[in-house]
Amino acid sequence: MPRASVREQIVDAAFEQFHRHGYNACGVKLITDSAGVPKGSFYNHFESKEALALVVMDRYGATRHLDKLAEASVPPLTRLRDHFEALAQDIIDLGYERGCVFGNFSTEAADHIPAIRDGVRTAFDLWATAIAAVISEAQEDGSVTSATDAETLARFLLNAWEGAIVGERAAKDGSSFAAFFTVAFEAVLR
Amino acid sequence: MPRASVREQIVDAAFEQFHRHGYNACGVKLITDSAGVPKGSFYNHFESKEALALVVMDRYGATRHLDKLAEASVPPLTRLRDHFEALAQDIIDLGYERGCVFGNFSTEAADHIPAIRDGVRTAFDLWATAIAAVISEAQEDGSVTSATDAETLARFLLNAWEGAIVGERAAKDGSSFAAFFTVAFEAVLR
Repeated sequence: MPRASVREQIVDAAFEQFHRHGYNACGVKLITDSAGVPKGSFYNHFESKEALALVVMDRYGATRHLDKLAEASVPPLTRLRDHFEALAQDIIDLGYERGCVFGNFSTEAADHIPAIRDGVRTAFDLWATAIAAVISEAQEDGSVTSATDAETLARFLLNAWEGAIVGERAAKDGSSFAAFFTVAFEAVLR
Repeated sequence: MPRASVREQIVDAAFEQFHRHGYNACGVKLITDSAGVPKGSFYNHFESKEALALVVMDRYGATRHLDKLAEASVPPLTRLRDHFEALAQDIIDLGYERGCVFGNFSTEAADHIPAIRDGVRTAFDLWATAIAAVISEAQEDGSVTSATDAETLARFLLNAWEGAIVGERAAKDGSSFAAFFTVAFEAVLR
């Protein structure tokens, strides 16, 4: 029977290596080498690189600071800002490298691998739903106008955030994050 | 002396293959096979895959409908809408596949390859400058408020557009483009 700890070592290594290198440039051997386990052990635990990528996406989702959106004692606009600021800080701490696993996988693999596409779509949908719930609260308490429905605003903001990351991968100077916070909180959420 | 036509065949093939597969999954052999030329001929024309990628980025930039932004007879907000609608149509015509070469290269290669990062940054800067010029005109004629400077709005919109593409790679249903047009033209540019 496979040891759980080998599986964990593989998932930990894959989390790091997929994030660093992307889906296509990160092969099974890179993952098992990085995990310090034999390449042959991989298929005792995972059917494929795809299957492992889905596990990594779940784990990555759990680090996306969705808890900041659920802090009922905090005003909704502050929660939204706290959420995006926590996401920004993670990327700043990595020197504007690596980006977002969801965005990376969408760009690299969604066209070619249906399971990855489904995983990313589900992750984006859950994330957009969580943002929309907070925007709805802000619309109910009057801190955001109801001119545009919360779902459309949420989808737009999530995508604008993903795009700000794309901009920072190239510029690595904070300019795209700064533009995001200014326009998102002064024009989009008003 | 290398024949110009072989070079052209390589650039044409690279344009298609880089766009379809991304930077990492598209090797020199895939490009030369797709071009119908011997792999050995590649290095008569290009120093490296990187060097070819920079040529492809230039060529891709020339297809990004920047001419729509420069139509002096058209009102500035209409020019901006025409620009993004033309970009959207290109992607819809490809079944929401392939995305934007600049965004793809930024995501896949900017962290690891300085020349690609510089090329993408330059492309984004030129594009943002062209968008900002039109927003400035709109601010001068009063069709957009001057609450936020044109450069910040332009950078935000460009990134929001790149992010909408990331969203559509996963969803392929038009929802992210729809959210972009609604929020960009009803809330950001107001």
